[in-house]
Formats: sequence, C-alpha cells, structure tokens
Amino acid sequence: MRDLRIDSIFYCSSIALFGSVSEGKLGRALLERLTEGGFDTKKIYIINPKGIGHGDSKGYKSILELADKKVDLALISSPAATVPQVLEDCGAVGVRGAVVISSGFSEAGNNELEAEIIGIAQKHSIRFIGPNCAGIANTENSLLATIEAQPAKGRISLVSQSGAVGGLIMHLSTENGLGICKFASYGNGADLNETSLLEYLIDDDSIDVITLYVENIKDGRRFMEVLQKATAVKPVIIIKSGRTSSGQRAAMSHTGSMAGADMVYDKAISVCGGIRAITTDDMFDYAKIFAAKKDIFGKKVAIITNSGGPGVMTADMCENAGLTVCAPSDSVKSKLQEFLPPFAGLANPIDLTVGATPMGYAKALSTCLEEYDAAIVMYVGTPHLQALPVAEELTKVAKQSNKCICALFEIGSDIEEAKKVLSNSGVVLFPSGERAANALSKLVEYNEYKASNTEIDLFPDIESLELGCSCDSKSLLETQAMRLLDSVDISIPKHLFASNSNDAIKACNEIEYPVCMKVVSPAILHKSDVGGVILNIKNDFECIEAFKKLETLYGFLGVIVYPMLKKGYEVMMGLTRDAQFGPVVMFGMGGIYTEVFKDIALGIAPLTHQAALNMIKSTKSYEILQGARGGNKADIDALCDILVKLSKLPFMYESISEADINPVFAYEHGAVVADVRILLDKRDKIDL
Amino acid sequence: MRDLRIDSIFYCSSIALFGSVSEGKLGRALLERLTEGGFDTKKIYIINPKGIGHGDSKGYKSILELADKKVDLALISSPAATVPQVLEDCGAVGVRGAVVISSGFSEAGNNELEAEIIGIAQKHSIRFIGPNCAGIANTENSLLATIEAQPAKGRISLVSQSGAVGGLIMHLSTENGLGICKFASYGNGADLNETSLLEYLIDDDSIDVITLYVENIKDGRRFMEVLQKATAVKPVIIIKSGRTSSGQRAAMSHTGSMAGADMVYDKAISVCGGIRAITTDDMFDYAKIFAAKKDIFGKKVAIITNSGGPGVMTADMCENAGLTVCAPSDSVKSKLQEFLPPFAGLANPIDLTVGATPMGYAKALSTCLEEYDAAIVMYVGTPHLQALPVAEELTKVAKQSNKCICALFEIGSDIEEAKKVLSNSGVVLFPSGERAANALSKLVEYNEYKASNTEIDLFPDIESLELGCSCDSKSLLETQAMRLLDSVDISIPKHLFASNSNDAIKACNEIEYPVCMKVVSPAILHKSDVGGVILNIKNDFECIEAFKKLETLYGFLGVIVYPMLKKGYEVMMGLTRDAQFGPVVMFGMGGIYTEVFKDIALGIAPLTHQAALNMIKSTKSYEILQGARGGNKADIDALCDILVKLSKLPFMYESISEADINPVFAYEHGAVVADVRILLDKRDKIDL
Repeated sequence: MRDLRIDSIFYCSSIALFGSVSEGKLGRALLERLTEGGFDTKKIYIINPKGIGHGDSKGYKSILELADKKVDLALISSPAATVPQVLEDCGAVGVRGAVVISSGFSEAGNNELEAEIIGIAQKHSIRFIGPNCAGIANTENSLLATIEAQPAKGRISLVSQSGAVGGLIMHLSTENGLGICKFASYGNGADLNETSLLEYLIDDDSIDVITLYVENIKDGRRFMEVLQKATAVKPVIIIKSGRTSSGQRAAMSHTGSMAGADMVYDKAISVCGGIRAITTDDMFDYAKIFAAKKDIFGKKVAIITNSGGPGVMTADMCENAGLTVCAPSDSVKSKLQEFLPPFAGLANPIDLTVGATPMGYAKALSTCLEEYDAAIVMYVGTPHLQALPVAEELTKVAKQSNKCICALFEIGSDIEEAKKVLSNSGVVLFPSGERAANALSKLVEYNEYKASNTEIDLFPDIESLELGCSCDSKSLLETQAMRLLDSVDISIPKHLFASNSNDAIKACNEIEYPVCMKVVSPAILHKSDVGGVILNIKNDFECIEAFKKLETLYGFLGVIVYPMLKKGYEVMMGLTRDAQFGPVVMFGMGGIYTEVFKDIALGIAPLTHQAALNMIKSTKSYEILQGARGGNKADIDALCDILVKLSKLPFMYESISEADINPVFAYEHGAVVADVRILLDKRDKIDL
Repeated sequence: MRDLRIDSIFYCSSIALFGSVSEGKLGRALLERLTEGGFDTKKIYIINPKGIGHGDSKGYKSILELADKKVDLALISSPAATVPQVLEDCGAVGVRGAVVISSGFSEAGNNELEAEIIGIAQKHSIRFIGPNCAGIANTENSLLATIEAQPAKGRISLVSQSGAVGGLIMHLSTENGLGICKFASYGNGADLNETSLLEYLIDDDSIDVITLYVENIKDGRRFMEVLQKATAVKPVIIIKSGRTSSGQRAAMSHTGSMAGADMVYDKAISVCGGIRAITTDDMFDYAKIFAAKKDIFGKKVAIITNSGGPGVMTADMCENAGLTVCAPSDSVKSKLQEFLPPFAGLANPIDLTVGATPMGYAKALSTCLEEYDAAIVMYVGTPHLQALPVAEELTKVAKQSNKCICALFEIGSDIEEAKKVLSNSGVVLFPSGERAANALSKLVEYNEYKASNTEIDLFPDIESLELGCSCDSKSLLETQAMRLLDSVDISIPKHLFASNSNDAIKACNEIEYPVCMKVVSPAILHKSDVGGVILNIKNDFECIEAFKKLETLYGFLGVIVYPMLKKGYEVMMGLTRDAQFGPVVMFGMGGIYTEVFKDIALGIAPLTHQAALNMIKSTKSYEILQGARGGNKADIDALCDILVKLSKLPFMYESISEADINPVFAYEHGAVVADVRILLDKRDKIDL
C-alpha cells in the first residue's frame, strides 16, 4: 500500500523552503538547485524570519501565511533549533511531507532535539527525510531538492545514508551516461530510512534498479524483510561500508565483534538476494549492467576480441568471478570456421586478431550467442582505425538478442561515436574487460538467487514457550540443556543424572561401561578446564573414584553419565543473537578449522533444510566431511537436521541468548550432540 | 654496460621504413604516427619494391641505395616473407637496430622463418624488437615508431608483450595526465624481450618507473636476476596475465599445474621486489603513485575528509590493503583540537565535516604529517562550492613535505583547476579513496622490500656433485635418499638396512624395540598404499612376522628399520623444478591443510634462513606451530634449517627432479625427517 505522504515528497507540486536565501546560505544553494532542476519557481515559497524571497519565489515570515495555498513539501534548511516550530507550523497547515537538510541533531549529540521532531511529525502525521541530509531528487518531477548536482534522467534509484557518497555516485553516473530517477540522502534517518525508502521504491514502475549506500542498519530483520520483497521484483545493489574495524570505528558503529558483524551483514544481504558492492566503481558497474535488463540463464561467457592481451586478462577475471569461459561446441566451432580466417583463435576468447572485420565481429557474436549465456566483445583499436563500422554491425546483432552483451571499445578515430551507437542498442560498455566480467558475475548471482526460490521466514510463527526447568544462573545445567535439545528432537546420547555415589554406580551400570562422567554445577561453564570431565570409566571402582573427584568441584550438584561415544567427525554449531539481525546460527568444524582457518558459515535463523545445506557446503570443511582424506562420508542430512532445529530454538525460547553444541559427532549414518552449553539472557531470567 | 645497438633503436636520428606507404597500408599508418610524433620526416627513408615515398620522406627500392646515408633504425612493416632479405640488406649497410612490426612468424606457426631472422640478425650483430609487435616510442626523441597513439611525455616506461594492452595503457595514461618516456611492444620477443628490455631501462636516468605486461616469460631465473637489479634502482610494476586456467589456455601456455604455475610467478615477482598489478586500472594507479617519488617509512595513514561516507569506505580499504588507520597520538590530537571545530571527528578519519575551511584542511594535513607516514585527503564538494581555495592551501603543505599525499577531489564549480593545482605540486590524485589506499599499500610494499635487503642468489655457486649411489629406477631407494639427506646434515632418524630376517632381527635390536619397518623396493614409490610400512614392532617374533610380510612385496630388496619416532607436529616439504623458474621449494602441514585449505608456501631455491622463515610465517599453519591449540611451540629454526638445506640439493645434484620429505616431525627442540621420496630426471639417469 503506497504511502501517499512519501508521494507528496517526491511528486510535490509546491514547496515551502525554510531558511535564509541570502547569497552563500544553504537555502540559496537549494533554491538554485531547484531552479536548475526546472521546478516551477513560482511554486516555491521561501520562509524565513524576515520573509525575504528571491526572484519568482516569494518570501513569507511563516507558513501560516500560506494557508490559502496547498504546500506538498517542506524543505527545511533553517537552524536546528527552529525545526520543531517549523514542523508544528507545517502540521497546522496540513503539510504531509518534509525534507530536513539542517544538521545539529543526533549526529552532534542532540538526541533530544531529534526525538522532539520525531514526536511532532508523528503527531501531525508528517513523514520526513533527514535531518542532517543532502536532500532528494526526482528527475521525473524536475525536482532537485538537494545540494548535490543534477543527475541525468534514468531508471536507477539511489538511496544513501551519506550525502557525499550519494553525490559522488550521481556525479559518476552522469559522467558515464547512466541516469537517475529518484535520489534520497536520508542522513540521520530519524523517520524515513534505508528500509522505508527501499519499501517505497519496490512498486515504483519508473525504477528498474535500486542502489543503496548504508553504514548501519537499525532494524536488520525488518530491512531483510523489505529487501527480500524488493529483490523479488528488481535488483538492489548495496554498499555497506564499515566492513573493517577501522571502517567501523570511522562509522562510529561499535556493536559486538567487529569482523563478525560484517559477516552477518554480508549473509543477511546475500540471503535476501541483495547484490553487495564494495567500491563506488563496483556499484556503478553493477547498476549499469542491471539497467540493461537483459536475460541470463547460465554462466557461460564468450569473449570476442581483436587482441590477445586484453582477451587473456578478461578470461582471467571471468574465471576469478566464477564465470565459465569454456571452448565452443564442435558445431559452433565449425560454424565459426566457415567465415573466420584460419589464424583466428577459436578456443574462447574468440580472437579475430588485427584482421577482424565488422562482419566477422557480428557473425562471431551471433554464432556464439547460440550457445553462450552472455558475451564480452572487446575492440582495442589504434588511432588510425575506425571503430564505427564494427559498432554498427554489432548493433544489429544486439538488437536481435535479449542476452547480455558487454563491450570494451577503446581507441579509434571515431571511438566516441562507436560507443554511442552501441550503448543506444543495449550493449553495456565498460572501461575494461575485467570490469565487464565482474559485473556480469553479479547478473549471474542475481539470476541464481531468483531461480533458487529460497525465501527466509524472518518472523516465523513459532509458538513461544517457557523453559520448563528451573535454574538459578545465566546458563542451563547440562541436564537441562540436553532435555531441551531432546524436546525438539535433536539427537542426544542416552544419559543419566546422579547426585550420590550409589546412584552413580546404578547409572553407570544402566548406561553400560565404559562410560563418561561429567560434573553438573551451575558455577562451571567450561567443565574440561577444571577437570570436570572423566572419560572411559570401566567399572564400579573407577566410577566411585571419578565421583569422588567430581564431588569436590565448586557448586557440585551431581554428575551426568554418558556412554563413551563412538568417534566421528567433530563439528560445532552455535547460536547467537546479533544486535541488528537477531538470531544467527553458525557452523564449522571447530578447533583449528575455526580458529586458524576461519572456516565458518553463518546463517540467519530460522533455517530451512536447504539453507542449512548451503551453509555446510559453503565451508571448506565440507570436503573433509565428504571424505577428502579417505574417511567415510559424514551424514550431512543429519547435520542439517540438527542445524534447522537449533535455529528454531531462539524463537521458541526468548530467554535463550546463546547456545553452543560442540562437538557434534557426525557419523556415516546419523549425528549426535556430545556436549551443549546454553546461555540465558539476564533480562529474561527464569524463576527458580 | 649499455648496449649501443639498443640505443640506436630508441635514440635513432634516421629511419628506414620498409613497406608500402599507400593509403590504408600499415607503412602509411606508421609514417603518419612518426610525423605526428615530430620526427624529422626528411630523415625517414621509405623502402618498397616500387621505391615510392610520401611527402618529405623519399622512396627507395632498396636500403642498399642509401649507402651514403647513415641509417640507425630499420622499421619493418613489409610482408613476413620479405623480412629475411630486408635484414640481410640492413646488415650489409651497417644498420644496428630494427623493429619488426610485420606478423606471420612463430605466432602463426612459422617458427622456421622466425629462426631465420634471428640467425641473420645475429650474423650482422643487429638487435631487434618484434616481430609481430606494435612498435616503439621514445618521447625524449620525438620518436613514435608504433601504430599506437602518441603518449604524453613523462618518466614512466612501458614494455608490453601485447600491443593492444600497451596501447590501452598509453591511452589511459594520456587520459589521466601521466606521461610515458619509452614504450616498447615486443610481440614474439625473438630477440629483445621483457628481460633484455627491462635490463636496458635500469640505468636509464630519464625513467623513474618501469611498467611491464607479460603473458609468459621464457627464462624465469634470468628474468628474476634482472628484475632484482632493476627494483634495487626503481620500481617495476608487472601485469602477468594468464593467472587462471581460462587465462592460461587463452595465453596458450600449458606448463604443468596451472594454478601452481601462477603461484610461482607470483612468488618470483615478489621476492625480487616487483609490484604485481592485476588490472590495467591497478597498473595505472601504481605507476601514478610511484611516479610522484615520495618517501614512505611506515604504514600509518591519516585520512582527512570533509565527508563521513567516503572516509569510511577509504578506511575500510586501507585496512584491507594492510595499512594502519590508527587514531592520532594525544599530542597531535590536542594540536588538532586547537584549530578544528568541536564537532570535527578526530579518531582518523579526521572528519572536518561540511564546515571544512581551506586553512583547516591545510593545518590538519601538516599536523597529521608530523606522525603519519602518508595521508589521503578527500574533498567531496557540491556544485555550488569552490574547491580551488582548499587545493591552494593544501599545495603549500604538499610542497613542504616529501611524504606521500594522495587526494580524491570531486565535485565543485572549479574542480578541474583545483585538481591541476594539486597535481602540479606533487599530490597524487585518484578517482576514489579506495584506489588511493590500494596504491599506497604498494608504495609500502616496495619500501618494505627495499628495507628487507634480501637478495636471492639465483645462480648459487654450489659445487655440482654426482650421486654416490647406484640406482636403476627414476627414484632413489629410501636408504639412498636418507643417506643423501644425511650428507647435507638434514636431521634423519637412526636407521638400518637388512636384506634377510637374521639381519632384520639384529637391526631391530640395535635400533631397540619398538621399531618401524619399511620395505625397500625400487618398484614401490608409495609404500603405505601397498602395506609396505609396519609400525610398532615390539619383539623378535613380530620382527620376523613383519619381515615375512614385506618380503612378498614386488621388487623387494630388503627392509629399512627405524625407531618409533616420538609424535610431533607433522609438516611436509617439497622440492620441484619449475619449467620457467627452476628449483622451487614448498612448505605446508600436509593433509587437509594442504589439500582442503591450500595452505602452502612456495619459495624460490636456494633459500636463506630468513627466506625460509618468511615462507613458514606466511602460512596460516604457522599459528598452529606456535601452539595455537595449546600445544608446544614447534622448533621453527630447525624447520628453517631443513628447508634451507633441501633448497640447495637441486644445485648440488642436477639429476634430482623432485623431492618430498613428508612428514617431518617438528618438536619443541629439533625436527626430524620421518619419510623421504626423491625422484630423478630421466635425462640425467644415473649409471648403475
């Protein structure tokens, strides 16, 4: 359902501009931009204490004087302290949308002032962008309500937390002939932010590609929900900066483990089908290729070139980016041989060599497109050669095909004309073959996401339960934790609790020797570290000895007795709550695999079986579990089953803050949890 | 010692241009380029069958008609078949240098024709570039003997195997205001190639930075020798394409293990101080920063910006590239506070915010340069702001400092002027902060190389020996291999050979039970696979049993008896001969570490102790050897010692083609080889 108040911002037909429009003032810069953008200056009302306007735009002392005129958008550049009253006045005359350029709010420590304007806006049902932002643009509506430069018209939208990054990207787009439809810099995002603006753009038919620059996201799960909806309809390209600890410090984001947090962002974006870009160059390249709206069904790329070197470099980059640069089939090869000279290279890159003719290029392209999913056409000329005839022939093929054709066209007496002709016929031009390859790989990635049809249930309808056991610490006792796993059908070993040595002997005999005995104590989280685990107990005598030893440990309540488990592959699974994205599960093989090789997979909970499988497969350790070293194959299905069940726990039990099941023994058939640790959140401390 | 014949190519004062200069012919294009370059056209003599010249450049039917005129350079664009006679004629009149643009030689399968022109050139003591190349340029000499576009004058040199890549890079340089001094496209490299041209440029005072594009290198070790000399004097930036199997197929290079081969190239380049670039953008960025000739002594970078977003992205990239974006010291911080507004960010990035003044920028920069090794200054303006005043103030600081100052300057009414002013004062401009960070990291890398002072002895003076043992297969027997290791003081366990059961019992008793017994057979390379290794033999009875079992194996000569070795960390070392770079050693922890995690380090033999240490430290497994999992520290020195000795073996024994010592047990004190396999080259098969 479309929020008409946001429409009144982007499709406004009249603007109240708050602030001084004297030379050198922010209001003046905004008025100049609005004028430059082509907005009707008579429909801009300037409001400042002296009531001074400029040119056709009349001045008023208060918006209340404008009661007879309908104002759609309040564009506010007056000092921070004046903004609450401005919004009150706007509310009084029925303005529904505002853009607050003014700074001096939460970014400067004035959280109260920001809270105040949020309250006023809510009271009057006003939606606003900012404060502390660079403004908005909508080229559809000749609206340039920003301090940034005017972008060319187009079908890309840009939402940016940073005004400067937004300005840079628009600047680059214009330089490269790509056009923007809607731009919004949301600054502090006090009301409208990355999530609500993204949601607004989903159904906007004037937009084919959404680009997003964010430094932090407040409600990660809500963002994912909207992102998932958006990517079902159109590509969303995201720069999330603050990837490293330096960058995070710079972004003033200090949430938990730094590197870990970026892994969660990365996962959250990719599982919702978002395309992550690292640099502005990347974002720009990706936007360009998606804007061409071409089909792609696989990852086979043909490289057609007149020069070996650039072809080699492009082939390298294609392979690095996960594309396939395979040789043509025999049938396509023989078709190519019919018209190409004998010295042409046919192994892909298809190297037409310096003798390349316009017709040769065109026929090679159309022949390759019969079996390749996309093509990169490279033309590197010399100053005395003409590129236009080649471009013109290629154009004919491009117009007939809906497959993605990228091109590098450089050097030639008529190179600019050639580029223009190509780009008008839907060929996507790049400044290098490498960048074309990289962009193409993102088209493939998005296509694979859409084909995979794996939607995450972000707010699962899982019944919330109370933990049916009492505990007086921030962690469950092992007996309780095992019972909890058992209750959700996670495979655990047989075990018995004993609080005295007689019961211990009974338990050991019931479990059957050899057994393993562990201390149960609310005070001991890491049992092995304090000698709280005794393995391979073989008889009653050893049982009593073990019990006596454990009995001396701090907080002793009793012991838990397990059979000695058959050794299998040892894997670990974890569960935590991310500050932004909520419940997250982790999978890895633990030990050096995790600590030294950082071979960990993350997943956003709850997982489907397929998502769990994708997680496990994404680790290098998967090879080991597949028997890389001559061992048995581990039962991956059984591991997935445990991961899926683990991922539902945080939705069932709000009080669970963290869980580690480590190790899980994975066998050829089945898997079983060998140890578990479940932490509870202080907030939700459970009654004794 | 300067080769004056190569001088006669680059510093020619007269040219004989072979080939037709009719409209549309290659000769005509060359003549036009030469004219455009400003070469005296009267000193260009055109030679073709009809003796037709063009303009001021007179035509002749043969160079023999020119006997009275001194010709420095023969520039040949006539058909391949005519080239031998052309070179004969050139030799006859004393021409010392030639550039053969013509194609149709080895690249088209005509190896004999290429061999013929090599022979003729040698006979006449002519040095030549090509054939199948795009030509050369020397802007110092107004010489544009190439089909590529004229580059701007400058102090960078470009040597390219591919004419098209060379042309592209020159094109980019010109677009970006960087100048080229000498350019050479060497094509097939029949005479002068990457190595000889690189050597020629080392002492060239007109060149500050050498850039190189190569697809393959014929004599890797000779190239390394020259590269090492070159990087001692000036930076050398190298694109080596054909990194992936697709790229290698494209580059028609099929030498051994594809991915492995690129690892060797990578290592060879880096140990000689070469800077490897992946894309042309990289090469261009690196050339630009090195051309500024600034000092760098560490990796601490200050980021000074007027906008948060671009600052965050730059901080991210700095950290990824290995630079340090640390906060300023208290003293620098308080100096900054003296003149910066209270809302400025001081944690680095130093964020001056939108209120940044020219003086604020300049003082922030000069203050930061007191303790940072380099700075990235970012100015992202809006169209209504002026950038020039900022640029002018920064310029004053830049002129006073020899530290590297990079800048991103974008958007503003006078941005082009601002950029010009900066670049004239030695500030290095980049199109993004991320690219500045990446380039800066290469400056640090080169500085670290130069400080490390680690020269490789590529042609070590090691006495070549004959293997003092007889063998009748392509591998040494384990007894022989152990003896060989022992002879170079590599620590091996006590062991005894026995060819009958009585001797075996004696051997076992002398070694002392428990022992390990292995089969000795020239036919068995992988003993464990055929049950040829029996561990933990405890007494004479088990000894006889073991002997009887091994005796039945194919090719049985006897057994080798070892003590049971104490378990330690297991590492593996390898030795092989690379087709391009000769003896190469490998280190890793074997098993899944090598196979799944590809955690391998390579080194070019022979190694110094320091080089061996660097290799081991470069693996992730180093953490494990340091006791990451609570174990002992391994004796890294002892491992280095074995690696160093292993790396000398191929120079001592030409017949050794491959060696694996796997595992080596590494203990807290010392390390010992537990198994060894040495392969011999068929060529050098040793007499029985």
